[in-house]
Order: sequence, then structure tokens, then C-alpha cells
Amino acid sequence: MTPRFPTIGLISKPDDPGVADTLALLCDELRLQAREVLLDETAATCFAAPPAPVVTREALAARCDLAIVVGGDGTLLNAARGLVEAEVAVLGVNLGRLGFLADVSPEEIPQRLTEILAGDYEEERRTLLHASVFRNGVEVSQGDALNDVVVHKCDIARMIELETRVDDRLMHILRADGLIVATPTGSTAYALSGGGPIIDPALNALVLVPICPHTLSNRPVVVADRVTIDIRLCGREAQVTCDGQINFPLGTDDRIRIRSKTGTLRLIHPARHDHFAITRRKLRWSEQP
Amino acid sequence: MTPRFPTIGLISKPDDPGVADTLALLCDELRLQAREVLLDETAATCFAAPPAPVVTREALAARCDLAIVVGGDGTLLNAARGLVEAEVAVLGVNLGRLGFLADVSPEEIPQRLTEILAGDYEEERRTLLHASVFRNGVEVSQGDALNDVVVHKCDIARMIELETRVDDRLMHILRADGLIVATPTGSTAYALSGGGPIIDPALNALVLVPICPHTLSNRPVVVADRVTIDIRLCGREAQVTCDGQINFPLGTDDRIRIRSKTGTLRLIHPARHDHFAITRRKLRWSEQP
Amino acid sequence: MTPRFPTIGLISKPDDPGVADTLALLCDELRLQAREVLLDETAATCFAAPPAPVVTREALAARCDLAIVVGGDGTLLNAARGLVEAEVAVLGVNLGRLGFLADVSPEEIPQRLTEILAGDYEEERRTLLHASVFRNGVEVSQGDALNDVVVHKCDIARMIELETRVDDRLMHILRADGLIVATPTGSTAYALSGGGPIIDPALNALVLVPICPHTLSNRPVVVADRVTIDIRLCGREAQVTCDGQINFPLGTDDRIRIRSKTGTLRLIHPARHDHFAITRRKLRWSEQP
Amino acid sequence: MTPRFPTIGLISKPDDPGVADTLALLCDELRLQAREVLLDETAATCFAAPPAPVVTREALAARCDLAIVVGGDGTLLNAARGLVEAEVAVLGVNLGRLGFLADVSPEEIPQRLTEILAGDYEEERRTLLHASVFRNGVEVSQGDALNDVVVHKCDIARMIELETRVDDRLMHILRADGLIVATPTGSTAYALSGGGPIIDPALNALVLVPICPHTLSNRPVVVADRVTIDIRLCGREAQVTCDGQINFPLGTDDRIRIRSKTGTLRLIHPARHDHFAITRRKLRWSEQP
Repeated sequence: MTPRFPTIGLISKPDDPGVADTLALLCDELRLQAREVLLDETAATCFAAPPAPVVTREALAARCDLAIVVGGDGTLLNAARGLVEAEVAVLGVNLGRLGFLADVSPEEIPQRLTEILAGDYEEERRTLLHASVFRNGVEVSQGDALNDVVVHKCDIARMIELETRVDDRLMHILRADGLIVATPTGSTAYALSGGGPIIDPALNALVLVPICPHTLSNRPVVVADRVTIDIRLCGREAQVTCDGQINFPLGTDDRIRIRSKTGTLRLIHPARHDHFAITRRKLRWSEQP
Repeated sequence: MTPRFPTIGLISKPDDPGVADTLALLCDELRLQAREVLLDETAATCFAAPPAPVVTREALAARCDLAIVVGGDGTLLNAARGLVEAEVAVLGVNLGRLGFLADVSPEEIPQRLTEILAGDYEEERRTLLHASVFRNGVEVSQGDALNDVVVHKCDIARMIELETRVDDRLMHILRADGLIVATPTGSTAYALSGGGPIIDPALNALVLVPICPHTLSNRPVVVADRVTIDIRLCGREAQVTCDGQINFPLGTDDRIRIRSKTGTLRLIHPARHDHFAITRRKLRWSEQP
Repeated sequence: MTPRFPTIGLISKPDDPGVADTLALLCDELRLQAREVLLDETAATCFAAPPAPVVTREALAARCDLAIVVGGDGTLLNAARGLVEAEVAVLGVNLGRLGFLADVSPEEIPQRLTEILAGDYEEERRTLLHASVFRNGVEVSQGDALNDVVVHKCDIARMIELETRVDDRLMHILRADGLIVATPTGSTAYALSGGGPIIDPALNALVLVPICPHTLSNRPVVVADRVTIDIRLCGREAQVTCDGQINFPLGTDDRIRIRSKTGTLRLIHPARHDHFAITRRKLRWSEQP
Repeated sequence: MTPRFPTIGLISKPDDPGVADTLALLCDELRLQAREVLLDETAATCFAAPPAPVVTREALAARCDLAIVVGGDGTLLNAARGLVEAEVAVLGVNLGRLGFLADVSPEEIPQRLTEILAGDYEEERRTLLHASVFRNGVEVSQGDALNDVVVHKCDIARMIELETRVDDRLMHILRADGLIVATPTGSTAYALSGGGPIIDPALNALVLVPICPHTLSNRPVVVADRVTIDIRLCGREAQVTCDGQINFPLGTDDRIRIRSKTGTLRLIHPARHDHFAITRRKLRWSEQP
């Protein structure tokens, strides 16, 4: 019988001293459990002699059943965008603090890996956003985001004006520092700093959070994740950022179209994963003093 | 061929001088269109000689295909709870300001009615909440809400403590003036005053909004509307309110269980209804000064 | 030479098992330092044989140079209102958690008392509010508050409408659950739960914080503490509360006038008292997760 | 007898078609009232043949008793920083919408000017901030602000970390997009977008408002305007901006010291000026829908 997750890829953040030991531990454990292991190129740079075959990120996505990402939520965000289309399951190992996405600590690896390879885990589907920038009707750039797509002023001292439509209906004309469109995954990231609500990852929703709106009466809006969001930049230059990692400059009258991606991220958690418990721990959310 | 909505019930708020004229106009228009008309008992009190047969609210729900509610959002909230199980479609006529739910004005009645009876309308499904109060494991009261279920302190000067679980997982232990659990319909009502987000009625979601939480780090949480929410009152006395219209007193260790009702409200809007446009007009939401 | 604080009164919360030991310790320490000690009647109830002469709160205020209040912030709030006019200095001993006002713990008593009696302490002046309720132009009740005066709805389900004037100029017409008028001392109490800012106690200011305002565009307002605030209740019944401890019912068109008291509370802190450090500790304010 | 304001300077925004007519009207009116009129160089560019002697901004500040600034709040902000030290009174004429600072409209000029020159006006003192940037203990730049000093991230995608001390006591270590330090004048500008309270200009206070703080428990803090605020930039690059008009780049470990300026701006308003009424009109603050 074929084992669960027969081929497993290891992806890591670059240049972190703690990475090599954790990667080596993972290689050992996975081989003990008779899995084939592949290293992506970044992970391979941690070793003089890589302990497993090295492949590109694309090849890893194509060949693996599970990718284990070693780093933190930022590393996993970065890797996720390349893994979602191949429908590779993703497990995150955090090297530092507990992450929302990377919720296995290095000490837990042997036990958690045994459980997960035996089928004792939870799998969630996380929505990603796809943003396209149109200039004079032509798409000039595009990108994916697991957390958020942010339209932001460039000039520190001047707000921007945006017109937002949801499924072709005007939502608002916003004068603000910017606008965050976040998935439930992103609702505990930048959107929360901007005053947005926490959204259960099990809900198929997006939230639009204005950043420092000029109008007192602005409020975050939560919509279904099947909508099409069109944002038109009125006036000044601005910027679009996906997950805080990919940037496009915007000019006057550029339009940004944001939609959920068809494919979703297969995110693996240890069994008895409790999202709200992690939220309380990470954010000191609603903790009593 | 049977016409659309062959039997139509009229429900109104009590004791409003404007109601009788509007009800009479509706009776005339509906008969012109060959519909059978029934009046509920409250609506009948507006007339010395009621212009249509008078029935109880229950009989009206059982016999009608469409109920037209004349008053405002409050009147419709009140009527909706009795109409949802019979799956009667509901249309709201507002006597004063534009409502979120009652969005036909008296002047528009002839035209809108012609359109709606001809099939030119939008029908939305709105979720209701069902709240049950348990004491020592026994259900001691229960009620429905289209907007919100609110657990609130009784003593003005003392906060209450609540433990909230969502699908049996602890969400938070809250010290606050209270907690609002709102549907998307209720997200533009009391939940908004408490700092909650606006939720698109098309989204199957609920929002939990703490009222004046003692803890600085509290935030509204949006969850799927299929969850079960259990709230346990720790300590002091409190109160539960459904739609601000039905009250139950609560004692120490009482538990409130909140779930979406199985049936949803069939809410009728004129064609080309634009929820966000109404939101902007009613709340001056994100309006420019 | 007369010693600093020659006569010292002890005030306590009632019925707390920890009080008697702490009061006895204080008596011993104060006598070692050759001070005259008086007990107020509540404090005396903790003892079969009170270890010092027992006097009324009024007599204590008249005869003492320093009052030591054993309990918590609530006990000190309660005592402060009776001590401010006699200009008695007040020191707070907290039996439980660190307080904003009661910031000496029982274990620290011997050392702190020695320092304070030797003159090594900080003295702050804290503003109190005086609220008067007028009906048809006649004052029908009045009270003092060290934290806040709160006008609050009575009926859980219905907001109230208030018209607020500051020095005879209209500030706002507010539809809300209520309005908090807080001193800097109160800015870290209920006003903070309502969304108000933290105000440095060294600032002669008041803050007006609406509770769950119906209007999205409402915001807290900070004004100088020398102003006169007039609040007129439009419509429904409501309630006024001083420090959450004294209540008056309000009827339609009642007016509440709020002013700073002429006298201020002389609040004693150990030397090197750091208000912001206490704020961070007590509220987990701006703590990193 | 010397008339009130014998010498009056006119300052304007550049390149606005409406400016020349308003400046010419002012010249005529002021000469009718026997005042000496000076034009600053920017105002002079509006005319082929300037209708009054042209001087530098510095000379204008040195010679005038009153400066009339034609434009909007931004023009007045810009002019104010150069007029405060010479203690010139400042009156603002707004060409477009009503301003907080520029509260005379062109149509009102004849009447208001007559009143003001006859002594029927209100004079307010507005605090300005002075910001100095220190690198390795050496001051490398400095500037003044009537609204606010803002420390802001440079890189859109990455928050900054700041350590803030008030009079040498730690207030907070902040991870955020930035920090706004605002005067009461600035409390209705960017600080309000960031979630700060409205502060009465009559109050000698400053407010610190975090911009999109990472920590949920952050809150604005209001302090007396006599304090010294020291902000240390930990890590990344950032920027300081005064009134959104003057920028300095910041490097790691740079320190920004912010203090109130000794001199205050003499701001002239028409008699019966009502700051809260303007606030309600401009911000739709607490307006009923």
C-alpha cells in the first residue's frame, strides 16, 4: 500500500542558523518513516552537502504530496503562493514564536510527524486572493496573496482616493492611507492593526479594512469570498502589495481587480488544532490582565 | 394560471396615523391586481370597518404567500419572527425614513407593487438566530432574532463575566457590559454601535461584538452561521434580549445557546435593490464631509 | 518638631479577611513611628478589640493629616469623596492586584511607610467631578466622582438621546447607550472600555466618551477641566452614576450639570511612582505579545 | 491714536486662480480702513502689477501686526510656522471649503474685516511643536509643526519599532506603521484618522496616536503640552514629517525629541467663533443620519 504523503519536500527561509539542524532532523525522521525527501534550492543552501536531492520550487511543487516549510508565517506565506496550484499539502514548522500558519515547533517534530504521517491531523482549505492591475484596460501586473492585498499611498504625507466596487456595485469612495483586502488568514495580520475584525478561517469571507480613513464614519466590511472587488485609484500614485512581499506601483486611474483564486491552500495542522487558542496566545487577544 | 402571490397579508405597526391610509392604498392596489387580501389583528385596529378579512398573525402566516409589513424596520423585525417558519415572503413598507428591511416608501407602492406582482423583484434569504436559555441543564426560555441576541448586564454599574464557546471550543472569557451576537442583518444595527464590522447580507456569517470590554485587546469575531455558540454567565445577574424586543432574565451559571434557525426569512426587495447604497444613505457610512 | 503626618486614619473595605492583619500591621508600624492612629467605623468592624480609637469617617477626615485606605481602587474611590474637602492626604494599600490608586502592597508596608513618613514620597493632585441633577430648574440630587459621571439608559433595549453643551456651546446631540464624563483618573477605568484615550493624571482635562453611539462618526472629546458640562436628557428615562457607586434616576428633560470640584484629592504615592508603568502592567497596555 | 493692526501682510497659496481677486479685494478693503498693506512674494506672483509693496516672508513677519492668509488650512499651516516667533496675529481666508483654521469665506471679507479691525474678534493661542532629530547625540535636523509630528515607516510593507519616553519615563515600545504626536489643532487632522480623540484647542495638551499598531491593546494617550517626548527608532529606516509638509529621513537609533515651542500662534477668529460647530460641519462629527 502506498503510504500517506509518499514524497515530501522541504522548504526553508534562507540564512537562518537554526534552519539546518531542523531540516536535518526532518530528513532523518522522514526517511525513518520511508518517505522520499526533496530539498528546495533555498533549503539546500543551508548545507555544504545537502542531505537530499535538490530541486527547484516548481519541481518540488510538481513532485511532492506534502511540503514542510521551516521558518515562520512569513516563510509559509511566501511558499504557499507557489504550492496552491499543484494542490500540495503544506505543514509549517516555526523556528521562533508560534505562528498562525506554522504551528509545529522543532521540539515537537518527531511526535507530530509520526501522527501526521499516520493520518492523525487536520486539513484546512485556505483561500488565496488574486490581484490584477489594469492600465487603460490592459493587465500590467498580477500576483497572489494568502493574507492580504493592500493598496497604499506612496507619499507618506498625502492620502489617496479610491473608489471600490463589489460585484459592480459601488461600495465606497475612500480617502485614506490605503485599503486592505484580507482573507480570514490575513484577518489576524495587517487587517487587525487597521481595526478589522477577526474572521474564522472556516468562513468563506473577505474583509475590506480602510487604513486611517479621512472619513470618521468608515468601518470594515465583510463580504463573501466569491465576489469581485474592483478598486480604482483616483488621482495620486499608489502601490499594491501582496502579503507585504510583492509590490506593484500604481498610476492614476489604474484599476485593481481582486478575486479569490480557484484553488485553495491545503494547510495541515496537528490534530486538535485550536485556532482561537492560538489567536489568544499570539495576540493576547481578550486576555485578562 | 395562478398568479404570483395569490394571497397577501397586511401587517402593520399599531397606533400610527399614517398606517390606515397606506393599508387602504395597499388593499385597493392588491384587489386591482386580483389578489386576495387578509389583515392581521393589529392592522385591523386602524379601521372602524376593516377593508379586508381579519385573521390572527398565525392564520395570516399559514394562509398567505406574501406578507406586506407597514411601519419600519422594527415592525418588520417583530413580524419576521412569526413568518419565517411558514416560509411566507415578506415585503416592508416604511412610513418614515428608509429602512434596511422596509425599503419601499408609501409613494412608491403602486409602481413597486405592479413590478413585484409581475415577478420583477429580488428575493434574499436572511438568517435568524434561535436563542435558548438553560438553567441546571433545563431550557427555561427561548426566542428568535433577525438582528441580534444580546447578553447584557442588569446593574448599570457592574460589568458581567461571560465564557463563550464556539462549537465547543473556548473563544474567550469576557468581562464587559455585554456581548452582541448578530446576523448580517443585525450588523448595521446595535452591533455597529458596539464597533462591529458591516457584514454583507449575502454572507452566511455571524459576528460576536463585545460591549465595552474591560480588556483592551478585545475585537469583534466573525464566524460561519452554522456554528453553535454557548455563552455561560459567570457570577452576576444579566439579561438576554432578542432584537431588542424580547427579554429574559439570567441568573448565575445560566447558559445561552445560540444557533441559526433552520428556516430563513424570504425578504423581498424591489428590483435593482442596492444594499450598500442604502447603508451609505442611512448611516452616512464612509460619506465625504 | 512636629513630625510629618502626626495623625493618621485607617480606612478599609468591609468584610475582607485580609484586612484585619494589614490594619494591625499598619497600627504597629505607625506607633513605632510615634504617630497617632484612628480607625474609621468600617475598619473597626474587623476587630473584636479595635487596636486604636474608632471615629466616624467625618471625624477621621477632620482630625487626620493622612488617611491610609486598605482595599483596592474601589475602596479608595469610595473613601476619596469624603476626604477631599478636608484636604487629607490619601495613601492606598491594595490587598489584591496592584491598583492605579492603591499602589502599595501589604508586604511593602514597613519600608514604604518609613519612606513616606520621612518625606520620601510623591504627592499628586487629582481632580474630582461634581454632578448636579436639575428638574424644572431645581437641583434634585448631586454627587461627587473621582473616576467618572456616567449617564446611562435604564432600559437595556433602548438607546437614549442626550444634548451636551460645554460652556454653553452645543457639543453634540447623541443617541447612544450613554455618555461617560471622566477625569484623567477615570480615563483608565470605564471610559477606556468605551474607547476613550488614556489621559495623563498630570493634565487638567476631562474626557467625554459616548457609549455605543448610534452615529458612526462619534469620537471621544477631551476638554479642559475648568469647563461646565450640561447634559439634557431628551425623551426616555435614564440614570446617572458617580464612580459606579452612587445612582440617581433621571426623567425626561432632566439636566445634569458636571463641573470639577474646587478641592482636589491629595494622592500619595511611594517615591519614583511611575503611572505609565502601572498602566502597562494593569492593562497589558501596548504590551508585545 | 494708532489703529488696531496698523500694518497687515497678505500671504497666499501659489497658483490658484481665485487668489488674485480675493487678494485685490483685501487690499481695497484694508486701504479703505487706512491700513498699510504688504504682499509676500508668493501672493505677489498672482499679479502682473502687485497692488501693494512686495516683501519676503521674513520681512512681512517682522513688519506686520496681522497676517491674512488666503488659501486653506494647508496654506495657513505653512505660513504659521514662519509667523509664530514674530508674534504676528494670523487670520485665515478659505477659498474652498470652510477650514478649521481658515474660517472666513471670501464673501464675508468686507463685514468680517470691519468687525475685526474694530476689535470685535476672538484671539486664540495655538501651541506648535518643535521636533529635533539626533544622530549619535548630534542634532541633524529640526522643524516646527502646528498640527503634528509624524514618525512613519518608509517601506510600505514593514512596520517600525519605536521606544517612546515622556519626561524620561518609558511610555511604550511600539510596533506599528508609525506614531503621530499632535497638538489640539492637529487632533482633527491626521490624528483623528488614526483613531485619536478630538481635543479642545483651549486645552494645553498633546496626543500620541499609534498608526496601525501591531499590538491590539494600544490606545491614544493624552499628555500635558509641557512634556518632552523622546522617540527612539529601533531597527529599520523611517521618516519624520512635520504637518505633512517637511520631511526628514531617519536611520537606526536616531532619536526624535518633540517639545512645544515657547511662542504660540496668535490665531484670529471672527467673533462668536464656535469650534465645535465647525467640527460638526467639517467632519459630520456625531451628526444624526
